[in-house]
Amino acid sequence: MNRSVPIALCLLAAAGVLFAALPSTDAAENTAAPTGVTIPKGYRNWQVVAPSQRDDKDEIRVILGNDIAMKAYRAKTLPFPDGAILAKLAWKRAKSAEFDNTLVPGDPQRIEFMVKNSKKYAATGGWGFGRFVNGKPADEKQHGTCWPCHEANVKGNDWVFTRYAP
Amino acid sequence: MNRSVPIALCLLAAAGVLFAALPSTDAAENTAAPTGVTIPKGYRNWQVVAPSQRDDKDEIRVILGNDIAMKAYRAKTLPFPDGAILAKLAWKRAKSAEFDNTLVPGDPQRIEFMVKNSKKYAATGGWGFGRFVNGKPADEKQHGTCWPCHEANVKGNDWVFTRYAP
Repeated sequence: MNRSVPIALCLLAAAGVLFAALPSTDAAENTAAPTGVTIPKGYRNWQVVAPSQRDDKDEIRVILGNDIAMKAYRAKTLPFPDGAILAKLAWKRAKSAEFDNTLVPGDPQRIEFMVKNSKKYAATGGWGFGRFVNGKPADEKQHGTCWPCHEANVKGNDWVFTRYAP
Repeated sequence: MNRSVPIALCLLAAAGVLFAALPSTDAAENTAAPTGVTIPKGYRNWQVVAPSQRDDKDEIRVILGNDIAMKAYRAKTLPFPDGAILAKLAWKRAKSAEFDNTLVPGDPQRIEFMVKNSKKYAATGGWGFGRFVNGKPADEKQHGTCWPCHEANVKGNDWVFTRYAP
């Protein structure tokens, strides 16, 4: 019997255990916020709703939407249908290396999501909110601040702040 | 012989002439800049490279890339391969209706493109530049300002200003 086969299998198994133990982006992306919202796979590839800047926080942002959300935006469909997801990517602002008076994304600050599920999130306008910093969900207290602000400000837009920028 | 067949064909032909004579968005989008660059179909659906703000022009912007450009950005491939296209969408800034200290896209100002074709645009770093205002190309004088600025500032990044924002 060739002893190298079980040895090779053993090494493969050990490598498998090792890889499973290493932190992976996918695993991190699947950690749920207290609301149950997780980081949607492939969100960075979604289309743009609009950019924005928040001077009081020295941040520049872009809001993306998945296909269901973008279709609703373009058709001006309100409320957004179940399955729509919005993503907000926020960066600290940095000075452009080449231009004065120009600010560009610096360090990533957080990513946030609004997930439309009218049954699951009926208590918060049909939207589940998720905030993640360095791939990890923010705590329950932070998540408690999302809905009251949306509820107070954007009733007429299905609780969504960002309008589509053509 | 059934006379309705040639009559139907005639009506179809007339309809074809009529449609061809109507101004269409596609036709407008295919008006070429003096460089030969046209507005690429579907550019608004491309993925985000990064947002930026230009305080001296009171503008907020987002830079998008087609699939070839995004693949190169993510693989840190320089120079960009032929076929890569970047799009810059610039809006005048508007105050958020809900938040102080927050600026969002207002009126669209222009869209601009960089099209990589190392042979066709060998004289301008392999990039063809196109600027469009209200869907119409800017004049030759304006287009003459693109390359000198890129050439002077971003030699080390294949003449591209915008870096990928993760």
